[in-house]
Amino acid sequence: MEQVCVGVDIGGTSVKLGIFTLGGDLLKKWELPTEPKNDTKALIEKIGKSIKENLKEGGLTLTDCVGVGMGVPGPVLPNGYIEVVVNIGWKEVFPARMLSDILDGMPVALGNDANVAALGEAWMGGAKNYQDVVMVTLGTGVGGGIIVDGKIVPGKHGLGGEIGHMHVRDSETEKCNCGGVGCLEQISSATGIVNEAKKLLSKKKATSRLSLLEDITAKDVLDAAKAGDAIALEVVDTVSKYLGIALSHLTLTVDPEIFVIGGGVSKAGEFLIEKITEKFVFYTPITKTKADIVLAQLGNDAGIYGAARLVLG
Amino acid sequence: MEQVCVGVDIGGTSVKLGIFTLGGDLLKKWELPTEPKNDTKALIEKIGKSIKENLKEGGLTLTDCVGVGMGVPGPVLPNGYIEVVVNIGWKEVFPARMLSDILDGMPVALGNDANVAALGEAWMGGAKNYQDVVMVTLGTGVGGGIIVDGKIVPGKHGLGGEIGHMHVRDSETEKCNCGGVGCLEQISSATGIVNEAKKLLSKKKATSRLSLLEDITAKDVLDAAKAGDAIALEVVDTVSKYLGIALSHLTLTVDPEIFVIGGGVSKAGEFLIEKITEKFVFYTPITKTKADIVLAQLGNDAGIYGAARLVLG
Repeated sequence: MEQVCVGVDIGGTSVKLGIFTLGGDLLKKWELPTEPKNDTKALIEKIGKSIKENLKEGGLTLTDCVGVGMGVPGPVLPNGYIEVVVNIGWKEVFPARMLSDILDGMPVALGNDANVAALGEAWMGGAKNYQDVVMVTLGTGVGGGIIVDGKIVPGKHGLGGEIGHMHVRDSETEKCNCGGVGCLEQISSATGIVNEAKKLLSKKKATSRLSLLEDITAKDVLDAAKAGDAIALEVVDTVSKYLGIALSHLTLTVDPEIFVIGGGVSKAGEFLIEKITEKFVFYTPITKTKADIVLAQLGNDAGIYGAARLVLG
Repeated sequence: MEQVCVGVDIGGTSVKLGIFTLGGDLLKKWELPTEPKNDTKALIEKIGKSIKENLKEGGLTLTDCVGVGMGVPGPVLPNGYIEVVVNIGWKEVFPARMLSDILDGMPVALGNDANVAALGEAWMGGAKNYQDVVMVTLGTGVGGGIIVDGKIVPGKHGLGGEIGHMHVRDSETEKCNCGGVGCLEQISSATGIVNEAKKLLSKKKATSRLSLLEDITAKDVLDAAKAGDAIALEVVDTVSKYLGIALSHLTLTVDPEIFVIGGGVSKAGEFLIEKITEKFVFYTPITKTKADIVLAQLGNDAGIYGAARLVLG
């Protein structure tokens, strides 16, 4: 029997799981609700039981599985310690050890979800065959993951790749969730895009198809921009400007070979990539040879791919 | 005979060389003028000859030396290729191969000088015993070097740690040498500090001991700030603010355990470290546990230490 590995991506509402060949083929994937919250042991036990059952269904035993990787939505310290993960109610836990105990001592690796997604895209997605990769995830917030020499840079305090909280707009006065001001996330997340559009609409009183909508979404703004709406284009320009600055910061720190843009906002596709690229080029006059900027390819599966890859070392 | 390694730091006016034990003790150091320029082969031959002579004088043969590391003032690609180093007139060369050929095939490693200095401080200087280090060099320009897991992050285009050209001040209109605007180097280098002071003096017409000086230096500004001069303090506040922002960017990318501040400007000592730390803390509300910020310890020898360490892998 071919050996396999398992990837687990723990989110706020569901836990995604996948069984993979060591070469990166997804054999099976399934989901569990993220319940109970606030009880790490109970959730980890449920995950462990589900992995055993699904391996068994596939005619596999625990010894056929080389290990399990797990991504969690919060900072992970180098020793596997999690101080707190707010949206699943975890506090002061070592979840990898817990899962390993349940799985007869099988190796279990742990990482931050955005970092793990980056590793997934580097393994089998938009950055396949690249060793130095930065992934930016534009969702409700802005996340990031940095891969150097094929390995995640997790950071000494679990903040590696937390690029959503880079202070990029000095003139900002509203506070970010992190307690800071002028964070990238305040502008370039789905939430940020909507806020930028609303601010511009109230300020400019210009004609915009966006003003006809009762409730604006980030997708509305991007669609309107694609259709040539001036207000929407101005929002996309601002969003791309600060993303371009953030990518220039990343170039002047870890200097990757490729940037991968993922998350819900990235569904705007090549239109958005072109806008970001234009700004990125403007803010990196120091170099002629630039990193490519591409779209993510694995969608919501990036987390399970990356988690599985994580345990392969 | 104990084995040794050699570090070479090639600067615009002089080449510094040092023979080290593998444990990091400096046995001997010396200098050569950086002549001839615009002729890589001739300079490398001179360096090779000088290494042989100095090893011999110390009773050492080439076989006692495990290798030579070299730092150069420009970007180095991962394969050791240098496209151009302006201030020594090098173009399209592989200098490590050249030196290795002269030294009977001895291993020769090559790195960017700011990166190599960071490695030196991590090996035997201000960040001794740390594996995840960022060094910021505040000299005529602003340079930087990033160490992750004990190794330099050189970057795919040789731009790893080029933090002096991070776009941090959006309101800037003057151009930087790199072709960009609002670079950290325009504010926080020795040159930048003088410019900031001159701008403020001409704008404010306030009383300042700086206005008594015919020619202001960065040291004058820092000394005046220490003495409580309001204009000088405002300059130091601005300089520290943008350094604090840059360190926050670095925390949100590679998240090091320690920052080392070096270069001529860092001679202002703990006064400057405190100012930078205050701003750094302000721009990283996301974390309670912070990287330490400390002064570099090796001065101008950081380059030879780091170059020697580089060849040890």
